[in-house]
Amino acid sequence: MFKLGLCETDSPMAHNTDGEMEMKEMDIKSMSSSQRHIQYFPYIHKVGVPPKQDLFKEFTTTVKETFFADDPLRHFKDQPKSRKVVLGLQAVFPILEWAQSYNLSKFRGDLIAGLTIASLCIPQDIGYAKLANLAPQYGLYSSFVPPLIYAFMGSSRDIAIGPVAVVSLLLGTLLQNQIDPTENPAEYLRLAFTATFFAGITQVTLGFFRLGFLIDFLSHAAVVGFMAGAAITISLQQLKGFLGIKHFTKKTDIISVMQSVFGSAHHGWNWQTIVIGATFLAFLLVAKYIGKKNNKLFWVPAIAPLISVVLSTFFVYITHAEKQGVQIVKHLEKGINPSSVNQIYFTGDYLLKGFRIGVVAGMIALTEAVAIGRTFAAMKDYQLDGNKEMVALGTMNVVGSMTSCYIATGSFSRSAVNYMAGCQTAVSNIIMSCVVFLTLEFLTPLFKYTPNAILSSIIISAVIGLIDYEAMILIWKIDKFDFVACMGAFFGVVFASVEIGLLIAVSISFAKILLQVTRPRTAILGRIPRTNVYRNTQQYPEATKVPGVLIVRVDSAIYFSNSNYIKERILRWLTDEEEHLKAEYLPKIQFLIVEMSPITDIDTSGIHALEELHRSLQKRDVQLVLSNPGQVVIDKLHASDFANLIGKDKIFLTVADAVATCSPKLAEEI
Amino acid sequence: MFKLGLCETDSPMAHNTDGEMEMKEMDIKSMSSSQRHIQYFPYIHKVGVPPKQDLFKEFTTTVKETFFADDPLRHFKDQPKSRKVVLGLQAVFPILEWAQSYNLSKFRGDLIAGLTIASLCIPQDIGYAKLANLAPQYGLYSSFVPPLIYAFMGSSRDIAIGPVAVVSLLLGTLLQNQIDPTENPAEYLRLAFTATFFAGITQVTLGFFRLGFLIDFLSHAAVVGFMAGAAITISLQQLKGFLGIKHFTKKTDIISVMQSVFGSAHHGWNWQTIVIGATFLAFLLVAKYIGKKNNKLFWVPAIAPLISVVLSTFFVYITHAEKQGVQIVKHLEKGINPSSVNQIYFTGDYLLKGFRIGVVAGMIALTEAVAIGRTFAAMKDYQLDGNKEMVALGTMNVVGSMTSCYIATGSFSRSAVNYMAGCQTAVSNIIMSCVVFLTLEFLTPLFKYTPNAILSSIIISAVIGLIDYEAMILIWKIDKFDFVACMGAFFGVVFASVEIGLLIAVSISFAKILLQVTRPRTAILGRIPRTNVYRNTQQYPEATKVPGVLIVRVDSAIYFSNSNYIKERILRWLTDEEEHLKAEYLPKIQFLIVEMSPITDIDTSGIHALEELHRSLQKRDVQLVLSNPGQVVIDKLHASDFANLIGKDKIFLTVADAVATCSPKLAEEI
Repeated sequence: MFKLGLCETDSPMAHNTDGEMEMKEMDIKSMSSSQRHIQYFPYIHKVGVPPKQDLFKEFTTTVKETFFADDPLRHFKDQPKSRKVVLGLQAVFPILEWAQSYNLSKFRGDLIAGLTIASLCIPQDIGYAKLANLAPQYGLYSSFVPPLIYAFMGSSRDIAIGPVAVVSLLLGTLLQNQIDPTENPAEYLRLAFTATFFAGITQVTLGFFRLGFLIDFLSHAAVVGFMAGAAITISLQQLKGFLGIKHFTKKTDIISVMQSVFGSAHHGWNWQTIVIGATFLAFLLVAKYIGKKNNKLFWVPAIAPLISVVLSTFFVYITHAEKQGVQIVKHLEKGINPSSVNQIYFTGDYLLKGFRIGVVAGMIALTEAVAIGRTFAAMKDYQLDGNKEMVALGTMNVVGSMTSCYIATGSFSRSAVNYMAGCQTAVSNIIMSCVVFLTLEFLTPLFKYTPNAILSSIIISAVIGLIDYEAMILIWKIDKFDFVACMGAFFGVVFASVEIGLLIAVSISFAKILLQVTRPRTAILGRIPRTNVYRNTQQYPEATKVPGVLIVRVDSAIYFSNSNYIKERILRWLTDEEEHLKAEYLPKIQFLIVEMSPITDIDTSGIHALEELHRSLQKRDVQLVLSNPGQVVIDKLHASDFANLIGKDKIFLTVADAVATCSPKLAEEI
Repeated sequence: MFKLGLCETDSPMAHNTDGEMEMKEMDIKSMSSSQRHIQYFPYIHKVGVPPKQDLFKEFTTTVKETFFADDPLRHFKDQPKSRKVVLGLQAVFPILEWAQSYNLSKFRGDLIAGLTIASLCIPQDIGYAKLANLAPQYGLYSSFVPPLIYAFMGSSRDIAIGPVAVVSLLLGTLLQNQIDPTENPAEYLRLAFTATFFAGITQVTLGFFRLGFLIDFLSHAAVVGFMAGAAITISLQQLKGFLGIKHFTKKTDIISVMQSVFGSAHHGWNWQTIVIGATFLAFLLVAKYIGKKNNKLFWVPAIAPLISVVLSTFFVYITHAEKQGVQIVKHLEKGINPSSVNQIYFTGDYLLKGFRIGVVAGMIALTEAVAIGRTFAAMKDYQLDGNKEMVALGTMNVVGSMTSCYIATGSFSRSAVNYMAGCQTAVSNIIMSCVVFLTLEFLTPLFKYTPNAILSSIIISAVIGLIDYEAMILIWKIDKFDFVACMGAFFGVVFASVEIGLLIAVSISFAKILLQVTRPRTAILGRIPRTNVYRNTQQYPEATKVPGVLIVRVDSAIYFSNSNYIKERILRWLTDEEEHLKAEYLPKIQFLIVEMSPITDIDTSGIHALEELHRSLQKRDVQLVLSNPGQVVIDKLHASDFANLIGKDKIFLTVADAVATCSPKLAEEI
């Protein structure tokens, strides 16, 4: 066995003259066949110690990867000043970029898409405003101003902006915890604008300081559970309008709602309402089914809500069903958004409350919008800067809060329709906004006789799509812990409230990260037959252990939170193995090789743990050997002098090299 | 190139008949020398898909590794019932185990050690009680009962139990935020007992439910900083006694204390006090220096405090310096601990406050005790069950709270003296306890004339040892982020308060974990010359890239918090490489190999990210290839059907295998 490049000079290239190689090759040929497999690597390469980076560079690299991972200034490099200004403006207002290549064929796509989502959004907006305990016109207001702002600043081409069910419900719940919307409607409205303002500020801040990654901490699984729970809760809330119940609970949990529903079964239900609601719900669901079966008929479910509204309104108008107890919209303010700048609480007790509600609702709104943006960007293969997107969404909500809008964001259902209707750019949002403008100016009186039951049916048929049971099944298959997070969020929302569900989702997501860091996996490695590759013996049952050597792989960075566990776990592997060997009268372990490939980092506690491990092993007459420490780790092993403590010749590039060096010695001794 | 074991049957062993091997070997010999190096592995092994574990087993394994990582029931296995009872009792009361082999020679060691730590603890206790704003006898009480309980239940042989400086300061600060100790001494005392009670309950609970790993979340670096900060704060507090100042600030931050000190410079300082204090502080520091220089003289600093107390008390008694303004202890209650069971608040407003203070102080006390226990266990090489230790410490504090003690734990300085004085078992704690008992019963009147300045000097000389500047330097060398945590805790304690310092320490520790999980490292791999090993090109500058292939290693589990970043980072590596290749007119990338060895786990978000990556790569005509997915990962790749999506023949055991399969194709095309 040749052992080169370890005890000699520093340059790893120095030893590899052709002469040496030749000799090695000849040597291999003269070996017996069985030897040849074990000793495939006659050349042992030194573990690389990278040149020491200076502190400042290290710091800037970390900052860059953390906050500017997408390298947003890449395009600005090596450009003249005037071009930089243009690029800067385009970065803030992407419309300046894409408007240059805008043409009639794109406009056709946007026009159709815009009209389609407008027809879908108008009835939805009226219903969603009620979820937020606001008068119906505020839903329409929020579909007028925010989409316009977004069209200028946003970079997604497919997202449809406006109020959404989940955020409306969340906002409504959080707000009514502070102010009763029926007793103090004016104060409630002011707090809603305040929350919207701070939601926008939160979004701008996160985007501007490039903290967009914070929303990634709400895991996909938690979002799936949360959305499904919110959909159930929202549907349950609709029972009020659907059954025509007058006295309904303020709580959102399933038990309170069911008590409220069945408590009023004998005297509170209105059969006329139920008939209208059920008929149109069936119609909407059939339309949805048709759209799902045939993608070309996507417009059927898209315009079905508007048709339902028109038909049912007309029906109530001629039959005067409102006199039979069928509740109707009654009044919808005419005209576009009034200013609400001086309604926002900038002082006093409600400032802080509005701020808190705004932060929570703003984050959820962001999560939804960014998820939508990313999905469609991936489908059409264009880049989306999450942080820039947040600035756009935030600005639109800040402006919205000053023009009588409540929190708007990207809507799952309408964005999907927008995409399928062939939208090309954010112009479809402008078209939608124009339609909403016309509606507000001229058509609001027509909604007077619209029955509430229809709005409920529209909301139910819209939110049903949020229950993504296929995703849940997939989550169950892939990751049980994710499934727990998903179900935690789901049941939290359904049985307690949206806030509790959210809290559970975030907590479980964090717990998962911490658990992984606290109790990392470890594995015993064996040699895969006829190779020089060492792998987990559990995953590769055919892998064989090397006599006298125990090879342990640690599957995580060694940090304060797990250093002690890792040390004790490795010693336990050793004890188990020794007991086993003793029982079978096999030679005892003399070398413990720690495969460090997955150890991406180590901190001071980790180094201490290694030192303690080394000391314990010495007492048991076992030599600690390290294999393949990464760049950061080898750096720290040297900085802490641990490399010298165990001996630099005990650190190898691969497990195979380490075994090759340990084994011959054993062979001599045995 | 032979490609075996991938497209055929399932058993990886089936293909490896000797005949095939022979053929391959012959083939290698006929190749040219340069080819031989690249194509070292003619035999490509299949990636192992472990047999599916059933859900229950998976769950129990996770629970076991999380809570019973040390396998505490190992000894109970295959034992008769009566033996199990004995083992169970021994588990709760380790004294039953070690008392059997106790002998006279061990007792001699324990006696000397016990007497030494007693002489050290008595003056310290009196001083520490003042840090907690309690009358001096409570310090002595806490060195009487808790060590006795610990001796029966604890498993550390070297720890010295009693009140400690940092916990006393923390408790004092937290308590006086609630109740003023000079205005309501009785209520203050009751709250102190309540906090002690709940500190004990917290400790027992953590131990019993095997949640001991939670204290690992306070990183070593943070503890070093916190301790050093606390030492500075405690020393500054001693300026009151040291300078003989009467009106002193209640705050602990350095600015308030310094204002207090210099504000009273002209009229508040007492020169006689300063002379006594300074003389004995010098004496103590010299004694400490002697002990440090020569380990055999460890007893010099150990008994120096008692000598100082005796000498200074005698000096004050004959000179009547107390009439010159030298403050003295004056009164020290005689007799052992009275009962305090009915002083604990079990109802009312203070219950919750006591609970909160108890939880915080109890956790800090645990951190100190467990750190000491582990250190000495590692030095003498015996096992210490952290959870069992917590139950012992908790029980001792619960009993303590009912016998007029405040929170006791393991003391750094006294445990070190105990160790050096040759303690053998926890009997040294019993000896110390007996000496304290005798002191309480007979000697308390002698402390009447002890000047407070001496106590201050003793505390200063004791806590100076907590400033571990060598550890700080090492932390700076090894890990800059750890150093930030260390300094954060340090300056937090010194400039704000102990709670703020603690909060900073915990926050930075968590932020570090989260940052690592959010922004993991990625690396480009190249082939190390003359081997078939692929490593980070930054760490090994001699490693060469394979034309047409980009090999990326991801250094972390892929979770929701980083899945998006990882996807985008890999695509950015590709873009960078492609730009570089284009500029140099080199063949473009056709294969992107993701080396998955360090990817220890993947969740649903991670699978989604891989799917998106695959889709993006397809659009760019690049084939995604995976190398060495671990047990958990390959399982999930199959469960989610991602393995079929990219093709099972695109998953390899090693990077070398993957390159070997990709490269020949490239060779044909170019």
